[in-house]
Amino acid sequence: MKEEAKRSAKQPGLPPGTLAFVGRKRTESVRIRVVDYGREVLETFDLEQVEDCSDLTRRHTNLWVHVSGLHRVGVVERLGHCFQIPPLILEDILNTGHRPKVELLDQGIFVLLKFFSMDPITAVMEVEQVCFVLTEEALVSFQESDRPIFEPVIKRLSNPRSRLRQSGPDYLLYCLMDLVVDHYFVVLEALGDRIEDLEEALFDEQWRELLDDIHRVRRQCLFMRRASLPLREAVSVLWREEGSLMKETTQPYLKDLYDHVLQALDILDNHREMGSALLEVYLSTQSNRMNEVMKVLTIIATIFIPVTFIAGVYGMNFEHMPELKWPWAYPAVWIVMIGVGVLMLFYFRKKKWL
Amino acid sequence: MKEEAKRSAKQPGLPPGTLAFVGRKRTESVRIRVVDYGREVLETFDLEQVEDCSDLTRRHTNLWVHVSGLHRVGVVERLGHCFQIPPLILEDILNTGHRPKVELLDQGIFVLLKFFSMDPITAVMEVEQVCFVLTEEALVSFQESDRPIFEPVIKRLSNPRSRLRQSGPDYLLYCLMDLVVDHYFVVLEALGDRIEDLEEALFDEQWRELLDDIHRVRRQCLFMRRASLPLREAVSVLWREEGSLMKETTQPYLKDLYDHVLQALDILDNHREMGSALLEVYLSTQSNRMNEVMKVLTIIATIFIPVTFIAGVYGMNFEHMPELKWPWAYPAVWIVMIGVGVLMLFYFRKKKWL
Amino acid sequence: MKEEAKRSAKQPGLPPGTLAFVGRKRTESVRIRVVDYGREVLETFDLEQVEDCSDLTRRHTNLWVHVSGLHRVGVVERLGHCFQIPPLILEDILNTGHRPKVELLDQGIFVLLKFFSMDPITAVMEVEQVCFVLTEEALVSFQESDRPIFEPVIKRLSNPRSRLRQSGPDYLLYCLMDLVVDHYFVVLEALGDRIEDLEEALFDEQWRELLDDIHRVRRQCLFMRRASLPLREAVSVLWREEGSLMKETTQPYLKDLYDHVLQALDILDNHREMGSALLEVYLSTQSNRMNEVMKVLTIIATIFIPVTFIAGVYGMNFEHMPELKWPWAYPAVWIVMIGVGVLMLFYFRKKKWL
Amino acid sequence: MKEEAKRSAKQPGLPPGTLAFVGRKRTESVRIRVVDYGREVLETFDLEQVEDCSDLTRRHTNLWVHVSGLHRVGVVERLGHCFQIPPLILEDILNTGHRPKVELLDQGIFVLLKFFSMDPITAVMEVEQVCFVLTEEALVSFQESDRPIFEPVIKRLSNPRSRLRQSGPDYLLYCLMDLVVDHYFVVLEALGDRIEDLEEALFDEQWRELLDDIHRVRRQCLFMRRASLPLREAVSVLWREEGSLMKETTQPYLKDLYDHVLQALDILDNHREMGSALLEVYLSTQSNRMNEVMKVLTIIATIFIPVTFIAGVYGMNFEHMPELKWPWAYPAVWIVMIGVGVLMLFYFRKKKWL
Amino acid sequence: MKEEAKRSAKQPGLPPGTLAFVGRKRTESVRIRVVDYGREVLETFDLEQVEDCSDLTRRHTNLWVHVSGLHRVGVVERLGHCFQIPPLILEDILNTGHRPKVELLDQGIFVLLKFFSMDPITAVMEVEQVCFVLTEEALVSFQESDRPIFEPVIKRLSNPRSRLRQSGPDYLLYCLMDLVVDHYFVVLEALGDRIEDLEEALFDEQWRELLDDIHRVRRQCLFMRRASLPLREAVSVLWREEGSLMKETTQPYLKDLYDHVLQALDILDNHREMGSALLEVYLSTQSNRMNEVMKVLTIIATIFIPVTFIAGVYGMNFEHMPELKWPWAYPAVWIVMIGVGVLMLFYFRKKKWL
Ligand SMILES: [Mg+2]
Ligand SMILES: [Mg+2]
Ligand SMILES: [Mg+2]
Ligand SMILES: [Mg+2]
Ligand SMILES: [Mg+2]
Ligand SMILES: [Mg+2]
Ligand SMILES: [Mg+2]
Ligand SMILES: [Mg+2]
Ligand SMILES: [Mg+2]
Ligand SMILES: [Mg+2]
Ligand SMILES: [Mg+2]
Ligand SMILES: [Mg+2]
Ligand SMILES: [Mg+2]
Ligand SMILES: [Mg+2]
Ligand SMILES: [Mg+2]
Ligand SMILES: [Mg+2]
Ligand SMILES: [Mg+2]
Ligand SMILES: [Mg+2]
Ligand SMILES: [Mg+2]
Ligand SMILES: [Mg+2]
Ligand SMILES: [Mg+2]
Ligand SMILES: [Mg+2]
Ligand SMILES: [Mg+2]
Ligand SMILES: [Mg+2]
Ligand SMILES: [Mg+2]
Ligand SMILES: [Mg+2]
Ligand SMILES: [Mg+2]
Ligand SMILES: [Mg+2]
Ligand SMILES: [Mg+2]
Ligand SMILES: [Mg+2]
Ligand SMILES: [Mg+2]
Repeated sequence: MKEEAKRSAKQPGLPPGTLAFVGRKRTESVRIRVVDYGREVLETFDLEQVEDCSDLTRRHTNLWVHVSGLHRVGVVERLGHCFQIPPLILEDILNTGHRPKVELLDQGIFVLLKFFSMDPITAVMEVEQVCFVLTEEALVSFQESDRPIFEPVIKRLSNPRSRLRQSGPDYLLYCLMDLVVDHYFVVLEALGDRIEDLEEALFDEQWRELLDDIHRVRRQCLFMRRASLPLREAVSVLWREEGSLMKETTQPYLKDLYDHVLQALDILDNHREMGSALLEVYLSTQSNRMNEVMKVLTIIATIFIPVTFIAGVYGMNFEHMPELKWPWAYPAVWIVMIGVGVLMLFYFRKKKWL
Repeated sequence: MKEEAKRSAKQPGLPPGTLAFVGRKRTESVRIRVVDYGREVLETFDLEQVEDCSDLTRRHTNLWVHVSGLHRVGVVERLGHCFQIPPLILEDILNTGHRPKVELLDQGIFVLLKFFSMDPITAVMEVEQVCFVLTEEALVSFQESDRPIFEPVIKRLSNPRSRLRQSGPDYLLYCLMDLVVDHYFVVLEALGDRIEDLEEALFDEQWRELLDDIHRVRRQCLFMRRASLPLREAVSVLWREEGSLMKETTQPYLKDLYDHVLQALDILDNHREMGSALLEVYLSTQSNRMNEVMKVLTIIATIFIPVTFIAGVYGMNFEHMPELKWPWAYPAVWIVMIGVGVLMLFYFRKKKWL
Repeated sequence: MKEEAKRSAKQPGLPPGTLAFVGRKRTESVRIRVVDYGREVLETFDLEQVEDCSDLTRRHTNLWVHVSGLHRVGVVERLGHCFQIPPLILEDILNTGHRPKVELLDQGIFVLLKFFSMDPITAVMEVEQVCFVLTEEALVSFQESDRPIFEPVIKRLSNPRSRLRQSGPDYLLYCLMDLVVDHYFVVLEALGDRIEDLEEALFDEQWRELLDDIHRVRRQCLFMRRASLPLREAVSVLWREEGSLMKETTQPYLKDLYDHVLQALDILDNHREMGSALLEVYLSTQSNRMNEVMKVLTIIATIFIPVTFIAGVYGMNFEHMPELKWPWAYPAVWIVMIGVGVLMLFYFRKKKWL
Repeated sequence: MKEEAKRSAKQPGLPPGTLAFVGRKRTESVRIRVVDYGREVLETFDLEQVEDCSDLTRRHTNLWVHVSGLHRVGVVERLGHCFQIPPLILEDILNTGHRPKVELLDQGIFVLLKFFSMDPITAVMEVEQVCFVLTEEALVSFQESDRPIFEPVIKRLSNPRSRLRQSGPDYLLYCLMDLVVDHYFVVLEALGDRIEDLEEALFDEQWRELLDDIHRVRRQCLFMRRASLPLREAVSVLWREEGSLMKETTQPYLKDLYDHVLQALDILDNHREMGSALLEVYLSTQSNRMNEVMKVLTIIATIFIPVTFIAGVYGMNFEHMPELKWPWAYPAVWIVMIGVGVLMLFYFRKKKWL
Repeated sequence: MKEEAKRSAKQPGLPPGTLAFVGRKRTESVRIRVVDYGREVLETFDLEQVEDCSDLTRRHTNLWVHVSGLHRVGVVERLGHCFQIPPLILEDILNTGHRPKVELLDQGIFVLLKFFSMDPITAVMEVEQVCFVLTEEALVSFQESDRPIFEPVIKRLSNPRSRLRQSGPDYLLYCLMDLVVDHYFVVLEALGDRIEDLEEALFDEQWRELLDDIHRVRRQCLFMRRASLPLREAVSVLWREEGSLMKETTQPYLKDLYDHVLQALDILDNHREMGSALLEVYLSTQSNRMNEVMKVLTIIATIFIPVTFIAGVYGMNFEHMPELKWPWAYPAVWIVMIGVGVLMLFYFRKKKWL
């Protein structure tokens, strides 16, 4: 499955916290975008030198540091140092095959999610890993590629009266997670449309290549489920977390997010069952067609084989075959042959094959 | 599946609480019906201007405000404002693909349900989302279409000695939910009848088009299950809620409602297993038929192919074929051919093919 | 399924507690049998007028009131009034499609069970709903038909030294429930025998009509499971109930009953898996047979089609066919044809088709 | 299934505690063996008269009373009386179809297990029920047959320095249970070998009779699972029981026993999945073979049917068929026929059928 | 399955704690390697005489004793004596078919794991059992074979600044367990590649031998799952253990290990579902091919059988067949025969068989 970020298992036996990028490179350059925002201010700039990250922590407003591209391990390591992210967490950020989770750190919250998208034309599912580390005053986010997936939130931030600007980084974290989960519904809808198309194709008898497509949709559902199931627990951990990091005003939003995850899992389960049903129906349909084919063969064969035999009999060259000389023998044989054919047809009609 | 209110996923990245109608328009006009009732009084009127809704809250008796039609977002927003419904709840009301739930608000209870009905002739399942917001003195209900689904309760309200008139809006909420769940049994019965018809058709050998129908019934069960499973938890939340909103006298009724939901889920599980069994039996039946067809072909072919060969042999034109001149050769060949045929028939009988 | 008491769903929207018989009429007359018993006394009579039921409650000994036939709603309503049974409970009693349950009332216990029996000859499963309301001094029982299913307990009551006569109505309730569950084992044994017969028939190649039978047994297991699964929870509620109604001396018996329910569910699960396995084996068997049939056809056809072709060649009427004039051509052709046949047979032997 | 102790359901309606043997008779005589043991003493004798059992309880050392054969109800009843075993427990002992359980009595512990063995040659699984009642000073055990299944423990008892002689009857109970569970692994290994043999046979194309064998192994797994699953809970009850009956020193052994039960269930689950996979592979294999057969038929038929037609054409007797007179017509026809055949072969090669 | 360490069930009835090696011999000699390490020191040597093990416990630094080869029971017994390992634990160490577990001992922790590896060329899965006993100052480890699986950790130990050297044996235990689990991902990746190869082969129509391979991969997944599922609980026991043996600083690493086990189980579940899907698709593919084959046969047969019949008719030798003498009869028959063929072709096109 091209769509899955292939986990090429790390070499066994390395010390824990050994940083190594596990995945495929999704962008050329690594970019660190910094958004410094508050009720009154909004400043956005790119951090050219990762070594300068320690300067950032001295700022007084809310800070969002977003990293696109993970293949330069040094960058992640340095940032981890600036924001005091433990090495085991950094290891997880770089392991792009990790399962979704929320982990409560000593002085922060770590969130790992999968971002899904689907090419509407090729129906190829793309997935990339997205991680967040929330501290008291900053949110650090990591993304595999440089696709502008968080653009809508950046746009909302530019509005000084938006709730985002009135709130801390915990609400920003919620907004970004919500954005990720919102995309699930877009992908799920595409999958649902695909299943419906396959269904129609099945019953409309346009059935070539269908098996491959059904198999593919089932795989995509399976894959998406693997990324969504741990999310339920992860979001509920976040929602029930009553520390000082997730403010009480953000709790109802997390509950809403939790609702959405349940909804997505519901739809996914439905899709999976529909996928299984599709395959079963496909098998039944094929059985149907084979029956059809066999019946045509049987009807033709059982009508003509006996009469061909009769013709064969009177093609024999024996000297003493009295029938050959009878004047009405030829038409009589025709009548017998037609009679046999008609009898057969009646038999098939009775069997409801015709 | 035409029956499912198609969720066209909202654009990702919108701020939480952004109101947008997600679904298909089911009625032209949006109608707001107000029922103001108490032990002594009953007043029913339509609220022409949604802006007047703030007047309603000043009345002293029990209030039921029912909205049919959700596609005018402004109406819902304004009502939400009058009755202090939080924006996240309004968002759920407008999202017609939401899964059923009960949510305890600060000053109210929110209930989201699916109303099912089935066209008895076309066997098309209709679903629409129904929401309730219960506050101390009022019940606000929302419905996608303008079908008069709550008519029986309105009729019961007109009876001054009915329990409805003696009780508050919590009992009204129960009655409306009970009405919704009662309809489940009507639909389940229709589905059950359908499954039994399919079963009979399967064994009565009237088997064309059956596959499509079986698949459809299984989908409908799957779809209904998705709407019913969360209901169990939702109703049990309501039943165990011991705040001041759901009065103690209403508790036994909620327990009864819970019982009905369990019963519906039981029947649904049964229907689903019967549906799976149907498909399996269908496959077996087809295998049976194919066997039948193959046997007829094989019997005819294996009887006539050898004797046709014999006829072919004596149709050869060799100059030196002594048998051709023997006087009894022709009847002897007939005897051989009939003998071969009879032997074959015995063989088939022994194999129990005949 | 004729066997299932068909629930014809009630009209939606009726007030809760509206009494209506839901099911099919199983007896002409409704009979109310009263057994008044104690250590010293035993009096049995029929209550002709249901209005007299209030007199019953004034008696001082243990009272058992048994109603056979539920289609006269007035009778049940009146009895409910005499023994202070809440309307919601009466509604459940009359709804013969209700799932089994135990409900602890304010001043009593309500038990709803399914009684199963199986006609040994036609293998038709019969089910009827049996309800009990236990109060401090009386047990009221309801049964759909007038079959004397509780006769063994009545006989045991006639023995003055039986434990039944020494104990209160709670022990009587246990005995009647035990009787109902004991019948489950009789039905389960019949189902098990049926499955074994089908199994033998499958492997003994007596395979016509089998599919219908397998499907039927699976349905019966499914149906019985639906009635047994809620029983587990119901009986455990009763067993752990430590109020004054179920005396402590009756607890070990309820534990034993609970054991029996578990045992029945065990057997049922086994039966269901065996039923599924039967269908799978049936499909395999059919596949086997088809293979058999196809092989016979293929062997006959592949032997005779080539030699028939050879015969056809020398049946051509070309003027210049030198072989026709060779003196040994005819036996040579025979040798070739037999050779082809023998080669084919060797080929089939190598393929292990023979 | 001959292997299953057939439960012929008791007559419904008997009073609880009515003793009746339910099963088949496995031994002629009923034998009561008494082992009286302690650190210093070991006395073994048969109790000829069950009435003398009350004498046993007066002895001062540890007592093990073992009953082989359950069909004489009077013997069990009398023993039950001597050792104060409640009637409901005696009923369970005699019901050889009971599910495994551990029950904590007022003054004892009751354990019910299934003992499995498998005939290595016929692969017939034998099961018998084994029960234990542990009291402060004695262990009473019951076994259906008179097979010497507990011989190894008796041998160990004869060693004065064994832990058995140093410990009380609770450790003896553990040892006997461990012996029973140890036998599970022997049977499971035999089942595993059987599954592997079937697997090999499947892929080695020795496939007749296989279906019956696969079905049988799956049944045996199913049956064994039914007896093992309740064991998990039963042993864990025993293990966590902290009364005075199971001494603290025996706890680690019970934990070890629990481990073994988990292990057996693990293996069983594996066996069951392998059994299901076998059937699926069997079906696939058959499908493969059918394909093979069909291809041979199709290749032969599609090569010879067209050329036979050509031969037929020139076997027609029309007066005006110019080809018949051409001198090179006959070899030309041969060339055409061979050409058709070769073309067909190329077509099949392209389709990868050859 | 060669891959599974075959458990040849021990003889039933042996006393608990009886030591016996259960498995196959994996190495000739048994080797005991001792690593004595601390912040400053690192000493590595082989213990030639197991009897000297009591000397080891007198050393003051951290001790790691590693045993490769389990078939010499005496060695294990003696070591168990030196390090006070209870006999029941020693029994588990020698039982190479034991399920993974963690057991908290009075003065230590016992860990039992499966080490997996896969030969990249033959795709044979190798498993061996690995056990650890952790005490306050020492870690004793046991391995079936003498493969140098723990080499990476030994190498890390040689670095004086590594965390391993700074920490106690609890961290060493973690590192060794982590090494074992890291290998799971290598094997899982190999399995995943294998499944993808099979998938491609399925759709690329290179389908011989596939069934055997699919079955094998499914077995391997099943087998690996059996070894991984208990690991989840085992590692979580260790992680939550708050005694003095597992130091608090090691807890985050155990949490990370737990994460990895969850991840491995996730992947395994996915693999298993993909394996099932493969078999289903394989069956469908075969059905497809059979259809293909049948259609070719049917098309050829239904075109030629009727026209061969016509040829047969005019091959009859009746004296009075007027057609034979008509001058245009021969071409007319050709036209009829071609017409029949063309009609058939149109019919097949209409049926979409061509
Ligand atoms: Mg590692
Ligand atoms: Mg990690
Ligand atoms: Mg994942
Ligand atoms: Mg959202
Ligand atoms: Mg995947
Ligand atoms: Mg929401
Ligand atoms: Mg499936
Ligand atoms: Mg389905
Ligand atoms: Mg959003
Ligand atoms: Mg829903
Ligand atoms: Mg209702
Ligand atoms: Mg749906
Ligand atoms: Mg009710
Ligand atoms: Mg089923
Ligand atoms: Mg109602
Ligand atoms: Mg029911
Ligand atoms: Mg009973
Ligand atoms: Mg049913
Ligand atoms: Mg019992
Ligand atoms: Mg099965
Ligand atoms: Mg009884
Ligand atoms: Mg059992
Ligand atoms: Mg053992
Ligand atoms: Mg069984
Ligand atoms: Mg052990
Ligand atoms: Mg299956
Ligand atoms: Mg499997
Ligand atoms: Mg043992
Ligand atoms: Mg690791
Ligand atoms: Mg294992
Ligand atoms: Mg799948």
